[in-house]
Amino acid sequence: MATLNDIGVAAAINILTAFAFFLAFAMLRIQPVNDRVYFPKWYIKGLRSSPLVNGSAFASKFVNLDLRSYTRFLNWMPAALQMPEPELIDHAGLDSAVYLRIYLLGLKIFGPLALIAFTVMIPVNWSNNTLEHSGLTYSDVDKLSISNIPIGSHKFWTHLVLAYGFTFWTCYVLKREYEIVAAMRLHFLASDQRRPDQFTVTSISITSFIRESSLLLINKVLVRNVPPDPDESVTELVQHFFLVNHPHHYLSHQLVYNANKLSELVNEKKKIQNWLDFYQNKYKRNPLKRPSLKTGFLGLWGNRVDAIDFYTSIVERLSRDICGEREKVSSNTKSIMPAAFVSFKTRWGAAVCAQTQQSRNPTTWLTEWAPEPRDVYWENLAIPFVFLTIRRLIAAIAFFFLTFFFMIPIAIVQSLANIESIEKALPFLKPIIEVKFIKSFIQGFLPGIALKIFLLFLPTILMMMSKFEGFISLSALERRSAISTFSYICLLIYNTVAGLAYDHPLCLPLPYMSPCRIPKTIGVSIPMKATFFITYIMVDGWAGVAGEILRLKPLIIYHLKNSFLVKTEKDREEAMDPGTIGFNTGEPQIQLYFLLGLVYAVVTPILLPFIIVFFALAYVVYRHQIINVYHQEYESAAAFWPDVHVRVVAALIVSQLLLMGLLSTKEASQSTPLLITLPVLTICFHRFCKGRYEPAFVRYPLQEAMMKDTLERAKEANLNLKGFLQNAYIHPVFKSADESDSESESEWERSPALVATKRTSKRFTPMPSKDGGSVLSLDQVNDECLKP
Amino acid sequence: MATLNDIGVAAAINILTAFAFFLAFAMLRIQPVNDRVYFPKWYIKGLRSSPLVNGSAFASKFVNLDLRSYTRFLNWMPAALQMPEPELIDHAGLDSAVYLRIYLLGLKIFGPLALIAFTVMIPVNWSNNTLEHSGLTYSDVDKLSISNIPIGSHKFWTHLVLAYGFTFWTCYVLKREYEIVAAMRLHFLASDQRRPDQFTVTSISITSFIRESSLLLINKVLVRNVPPDPDESVTELVQHFFLVNHPHHYLSHQLVYNANKLSELVNEKKKIQNWLDFYQNKYKRNPLKRPSLKTGFLGLWGNRVDAIDFYTSIVERLSRDICGEREKVSSNTKSIMPAAFVSFKTRWGAAVCAQTQQSRNPTTWLTEWAPEPRDVYWENLAIPFVFLTIRRLIAAIAFFFLTFFFMIPIAIVQSLANIESIEKALPFLKPIIEVKFIKSFIQGFLPGIALKIFLLFLPTILMMMSKFEGFISLSALERRSAISTFSYICLLIYNTVAGLAYDHPLCLPLPYMSPCRIPKTIGVSIPMKATFFITYIMVDGWAGVAGEILRLKPLIIYHLKNSFLVKTEKDREEAMDPGTIGFNTGEPQIQLYFLLGLVYAVVTPILLPFIIVFFALAYVVYRHQIINVYHQEYESAAAFWPDVHVRVVAALIVSQLLLMGLLSTKEASQSTPLLITLPVLTICFHRFCKGRYEPAFVRYPLQEAMMKDTLERAKEANLNLKGFLQNAYIHPVFKSADESDSESESEWERSPALVATKRTSKRFTPMPSKDGGSVLSLDQVNDECLKP
Repeated sequence: MATLNDIGVAAAINILTAFAFFLAFAMLRIQPVNDRVYFPKWYIKGLRSSPLVNGSAFASKFVNLDLRSYTRFLNWMPAALQMPEPELIDHAGLDSAVYLRIYLLGLKIFGPLALIAFTVMIPVNWSNNTLEHSGLTYSDVDKLSISNIPIGSHKFWTHLVLAYGFTFWTCYVLKREYEIVAAMRLHFLASDQRRPDQFTVTSISITSFIRESSLLLINKVLVRNVPPDPDESVTELVQHFFLVNHPHHYLSHQLVYNANKLSELVNEKKKIQNWLDFYQNKYKRNPLKRPSLKTGFLGLWGNRVDAIDFYTSIVERLSRDICGEREKVSSNTKSIMPAAFVSFKTRWGAAVCAQTQQSRNPTTWLTEWAPEPRDVYWENLAIPFVFLTIRRLIAAIAFFFLTFFFMIPIAIVQSLANIESIEKALPFLKPIIEVKFIKSFIQGFLPGIALKIFLLFLPTILMMMSKFEGFISLSALERRSAISTFSYICLLIYNTVAGLAYDHPLCLPLPYMSPCRIPKTIGVSIPMKATFFITYIMVDGWAGVAGEILRLKPLIIYHLKNSFLVKTEKDREEAMDPGTIGFNTGEPQIQLYFLLGLVYAVVTPILLPFIIVFFALAYVVYRHQIINVYHQEYESAAAFWPDVHVRVVAALIVSQLLLMGLLSTKEASQSTPLLITLPVLTICFHRFCKGRYEPAFVRYPLQEAMMKDTLERAKEANLNLKGFLQNAYIHPVFKSADESDSESESEWERSPALVATKRTSKRFTPMPSKDGGSVLSLDQVNDECLKP
Repeated sequence: MATLNDIGVAAAINILTAFAFFLAFAMLRIQPVNDRVYFPKWYIKGLRSSPLVNGSAFASKFVNLDLRSYTRFLNWMPAALQMPEPELIDHAGLDSAVYLRIYLLGLKIFGPLALIAFTVMIPVNWSNNTLEHSGLTYSDVDKLSISNIPIGSHKFWTHLVLAYGFTFWTCYVLKREYEIVAAMRLHFLASDQRRPDQFTVTSISITSFIRESSLLLINKVLVRNVPPDPDESVTELVQHFFLVNHPHHYLSHQLVYNANKLSELVNEKKKIQNWLDFYQNKYKRNPLKRPSLKTGFLGLWGNRVDAIDFYTSIVERLSRDICGEREKVSSNTKSIMPAAFVSFKTRWGAAVCAQTQQSRNPTTWLTEWAPEPRDVYWENLAIPFVFLTIRRLIAAIAFFFLTFFFMIPIAIVQSLANIESIEKALPFLKPIIEVKFIKSFIQGFLPGIALKIFLLFLPTILMMMSKFEGFISLSALERRSAISTFSYICLLIYNTVAGLAYDHPLCLPLPYMSPCRIPKTIGVSIPMKATFFITYIMVDGWAGVAGEILRLKPLIIYHLKNSFLVKTEKDREEAMDPGTIGFNTGEPQIQLYFLLGLVYAVVTPILLPFIIVFFALAYVVYRHQIINVYHQEYESAAAFWPDVHVRVVAALIVSQLLLMGLLSTKEASQSTPLLITLPVLTICFHRFCKGRYEPAFVRYPLQEAMMKDTLERAKEANLNLKGFLQNAYIHPVFKSADESDSESESEWERSPALVATKRTSKRFTPMPSKDGGSVLSLDQVNDECLKP
């Protein structure tokens, strides 16, 4: 049992760590040389092209010599909070802005909860001395918890009433937030985003699609599983089908090419190009000695060759391969996937097409909203319907086995992180461990770190599994991955808590335990685990979040790249790694805190302040990161909110069931009927919310679409929509295949405007001509390949 | 333990009963006086108006004197099988035809299963003598079952392989059937049904809508929860909304009136009218004495008044009330519900509207396919969205409590039906019970009857609960009710079997048992219950089905009504009670047989022939009834098939789990991994079927709609659709409020054709005029009320 003293040690360590991180960050961020690490977003958006330098000396280009700026080392915090939300949406997208609202949600829920718990429940818990007389070992934390209430006491009514109060408050906040986010989403989708990007754009390949995105979201439909036809090509088939079945609304379509091999080649070329740059830089710095390398495995044996020549030849070969493959992709009908992005003249037409069934066989002509171009996960577009079912089955089985194989090492590590277990396993360490400080450290610190380390590996594995499952957009992949990550975290937590209940180091009680007894078993051991979770919150939530802002890994990588690979300003831009929010890793973490907070709110309210500190800190840090660092990979218009909502509701229900289990052992069973109604009410609340708000995240109401269409017709009657939509959905490999192609790229991107003006008249003829769909033209491809 | 002898007694009793029923039916059906009981369908369809009489004597009007016809007393069987399926669909609707396919499905599944089980499994089971050496009491039936295989024997591989084989065969048949039914449904919806009814119709109020139905199914959309608006009436609101949001497709709409009170009044009047008719007939037969009655409770006390005058005055008063109420309904805006039936110009437009979300708030402007007019459950049309959620919650809770309160008496009765329990509870009965024949009767007969009697009450209660839940069509109500009935039957079966396992008369083991142990506990006791279920199948399946064809209750009621109430030929028509299939009672019964068959196929295959006899018998009987008796209440175009499919799949999974539980106790645990894959594969099969075929029952593909629209435009360019759809959805109370109104009714029904010709031109104007929606005109109402 960790005592208050252990917690104090852990808190001190973590607060110091967090403080050190902040201090280091404050130092590093004002150095001009780190500007691209700590403010990459401004570079990407084209608002900044070189560090803001105060002095004019040479040194001031790398080191900040203005001493006054060191004194205000926490001034980024208010700065991060200043930007108003609409501007934030404009600056970083709705996804990011809504993501921040999750932290706010935590503050809104737990702030009042903590206040009430501290004024009402802590005095009630404290005013007993059950534990003192029980003869059990207990810590001071337990004195503030529900464990201190004598069995069968009438004081449990306090907890019961508060459980109701907490549930109602949580539901109220959840409902209100759902309402707001749904409104934000609809407003975002409806707001006029068609004007061209007004910012001066430096790197076209990254940003040019930010502004078009939401338009595309509501005017384009992705059709998959086009049935094969012996007589017609896919493009004819798609065109005919939509001309017949959506005659008044179909505008054009874009085919999807299977460019997976091409993109592999391009990636390989990029890697080799990096090595080439590295050796060229090396040679430039030391022109006396031409760098050389051995061709064998890892450069350990083989013939010694000239490195620059060697890599140049590989790059040239790859360039040829890429050109050949590119030509093959655009000319070979086999590389055309049975899928297409279909554009409609009106939002109404697109809304209708995305929401209805097209053909008699529901597994062909599957339509859904097209994810925005950046969001498409191209590799999965060609999976047929039957395989999707099979893949999902295999993924489910894999998840099941992963659970078992991953659980065993974790159980071992967690049991070792227990002081008594270590003494038993490694008795010779006993004298060291028994030193008071080390004991405190092990008890207060190690279990949290062990859990955290295992959680680091998880998202990558789960992301791979999600990809295997066949989702077609990055946002869907991340959402899916977040679900599995969270359920995995829950399993880990369960194992941690149940392991204690069974008091066996290698305990995997899950399969051996009746589901009905779970609430009771876990409920009983929940109060005992409070100190463990407090430590975990401090390690993961406080120090971890503070470490996030330091960006140690990107900092090191950037400086390495900057010294070895960067030749031009463009290279330097590429060397920046702004990173993304990482919904699949970040959201499950937050959800864990929601779960802990809700479970412990009634049981051990002392945990709440720790959680509130986490939410506040994380809110500020992530707001800063979103404004200054993270680059938005895609825009899904907050499509993840229903997931967030449902998981908080699930956490609420879990907390109610555990409280029920706990109280039933306290001989306060007269409260059980009252407690049973709580989860029932919560489920009703969830169903209501699902019916009322979820459709806003899945469908697009026709009324909205029609309103927007009418407005648009009135405002810009002659808009060339076709030209605007022509080439939005091109596999990224065709766009940024080669750095040297950047000119031809921008030409390509501008070209639709020219092509489309020729076609404007067709918008008003009832039947678009044969070439309504855009097929990659061979000329374009060859043009590019003829360049260096 | 029932022996083979007991089963023989039961079989003899049941076969005799069934035979007696058939004989009685054969006698009764050829009597002209019973013609309206046994062939009401032909009267309703207008194909027959008086019994076919052979002789010309007066007696031959009531009794069949043609002796030859008595010799061919089973000739209805081939006659029932002769009508080909397309003609059956035409004659009785798709629902009935597909309902019969459920019985065929049973034959298709269990025929081959029984063949294989008898040639392979029975010899394997029989060739052991485990039971003889075990010292346990066992019956001859058990010798043929899996119980006879020694523990740990390799012979279990036979059962394992057959379990796989049975699963694959069942899935294959299910998939094929799903495919066929889906195709039948789409074909039925697409087939041209717009021609007016070519039959000479006698009773308009019943049949005039049969032929229009499927058209309405796909051209009409029901919109509910129209949001209140202070400035516009509901009709304006609906019209404006659809003119704006479906400008090219909206045709007209019909409002829904809250006529619940009116229909109550009409029903009361009908009842009083019956009494009036009764006394008038009495007086006619005996003109000397005017009938009189006492006005008090049940006619037991109070003033003695003249019966005819008394009832005449009540009828007059009610007629006045009805007229007043009718006027109120049609003039008062408060009786207009916030719902409407919206017609579209094209099937495409209707398909789009039914499948999409209309407004930003997903709980208003809810659209769905309009059920056909006969199918509408008018009482539930006005329930707002929030109440639906609450009502569903309450229904779920009620179901939960019903389970407990219903289970207790059943458990008592079932335990009493056990011979040992009776001897224990009522020892003085012992000498009687010990008589061999009575003992056989009690053991082989009583438990089945006890179960059956309780199941008789169930559907009514569950139907009430479904109504409370707020479904808006009769077909949905029956489907819902069938689900709860079936789950209830499963609970009863579970209780029966688990009760034996626990060997306690009043055992309610459900809440006290871990879900993981259920397959084992039940699996073990399954073979022991085989004789009970064989008896049950004979009582319920053989004698019950034979009793169905006799129609004893309608026969008695018809003759009672015929002698006391019938004055005119029209009254006689009303006295016929053809009844309906009763999906909510019939389907769960079939599903029970599927469950039993699949569970026992591997365990005690001797049960299979009994089930096959049931399916064959029921198929013939119900085919006869559907052709000659049952009146189709509504047409849902086989919307119930996904339910049927999913329940058979569920039965399959249950059978696999139970086999797993059984084998795990036989120390054949090396088979467990192989058995676990079976339910997993079955679930995959289900998910595939759901994705592949279910949409055909929920949505209407746009391709189909467009094809049909194009065809129709080409064939009948000038079709007056609006007139055709004008008054289809009128609350039945406005149509058949009074028998005396029948003339004005038919006038009213014909009137749209007149009204519509005036409006034909509007079909081609872009904006329908203000009166696109049909509001009940006051003139019409007053016209009617001015009549006698």
